[in-house]
Amino acid sequence: MPTTMTTNIKNNDFKDVVFNRQSVRQFDPTVKIDREELQAIIDETISAPSACNLQSWHFVVADSADGKAKAKSVLMPFNYPQIESCSAMIFVLGDTQSHLVYRDVWNKACEEGRITPEKRDQIFNTFLPMYENASPEFLQADAMIDSSMAAMQLLLIARAHGYDANPIAGYAADKVATTFGLDSSRYVPVMAIALGKAASEPITTTRYAGTQVTAFI
Amino acid sequence: MPTTMTTNIKNNDFKDVVFNRQSVRQFDPTVKIDREELQAIIDETISAPSACNLQSWHFVVADSADGKAKAKSVLMPFNYPQIESCSAMIFVLGDTQSHLVYRDVWNKACEEGRITPEKRDQIFNTFLPMYENASPEFLQADAMIDSSMAAMQLLLIARAHGYDANPIAGYAADKVATTFGLDSSRYVPVMAIALGKAASEPITTTRYAGTQVTAFI
Repeated sequence: MPTTMTTNIKNNDFKDVVFNRQSVRQFDPTVKIDREELQAIIDETISAPSACNLQSWHFVVADSADGKAKAKSVLMPFNYPQIESCSAMIFVLGDTQSHLVYRDVWNKACEEGRITPEKRDQIFNTFLPMYENASPEFLQADAMIDSSMAAMQLLLIARAHGYDANPIAGYAADKVATTFGLDSSRYVPVMAIALGKAASEPITTTRYAGTQVTAFI
Repeated sequence: MPTTMTTNIKNNDFKDVVFNRQSVRQFDPTVKIDREELQAIIDETISAPSACNLQSWHFVVADSADGKAKAKSVLMPFNYPQIESCSAMIFVLGDTQSHLVYRDVWNKACEEGRITPEKRDQIFNTFLPMYENASPEFLQADAMIDSSMAAMQLLLIARAHGYDANPIAGYAADKVATTFGLDSSRYVPVMAIALGKAASEPITTTRYAGTQVTAFI
């Protein structure tokens, strides 16, 4: 576990972090999480697993006045209280071209003499052809799964840092990527996460019994 | 926090659970997790959030010889070691009809006199029309996001219970639902998770720097 991953963990009680996590929609607007800590939260988030370790996620962190105005422009009015009071809103997107990034990484390693061309080709032949020949639907689903897992870990990491969060699905999905200057054919929006110090009681929700959604075979 | 949620948590060290989580592909075949604990793991998993609290997830737990044979029949050979050695393999699927379940739940509450028809209709009118008029693609994406978040929490809960896991994407996605007797037009497969006591060192993987996948605005 890299040291940088443990610096800001204030709450190390797994049960409290996980089972007392609830959505908070009103934050203390005077609390500002600095960019160093926001980056640490993301660095810790991406220890999450991903298919073939392709890490098909991307994070846009809106914490400036300009950034928050852009974020607000894609949100449904129902979610304005969060953007108006949170310290930062993190948009989690899936990267459907992560396999091209992966190719670049290993090509670079080869060019720099860190691995042989044979080793590089061996790496390339394990699963890259499956991604390079995949349908856009497959790549989108894959990127959405990776990014959603990262989003869940982010919600927990935020709590471990002493903050609260609200995962938000209510936004104009078709406008998210372009609003943030990203290629909408590459990046698929998965979630917005408002982050800050809670200024209201969390929303208490219930769940169906686990047995209702479980089948043993 | 319900008492049932804390019974079997053996490792309450958040940093250890989260940052030392790694994929394990070989399990001790003599270790059997009983169904009570498997159900507890799922009960704890579903404290995860979901869009509109629709809880669009479903879990098929293959722990019997028959169940594991069915699971193996949809896996790629690369993932046979996990099914052959794990205590259970949990298939996480998204439920694209969770909004119909939600409607049934509130209709039942109304029929039983627990809420008035006016209150029921008020609940129904907040977001259900959006789901009932949504495209299959929207419903699938929504269910995949919910279920992927639950899958991430399941990986962590498993570790807190003292087990290890391997999230698996390598299976015949088009065969998963029907193999388990589920309606493939309703349930979308998201992930298989092998669960057990580690019998080999985990696979060590690295990540790109967080700054490479983060933009501040």
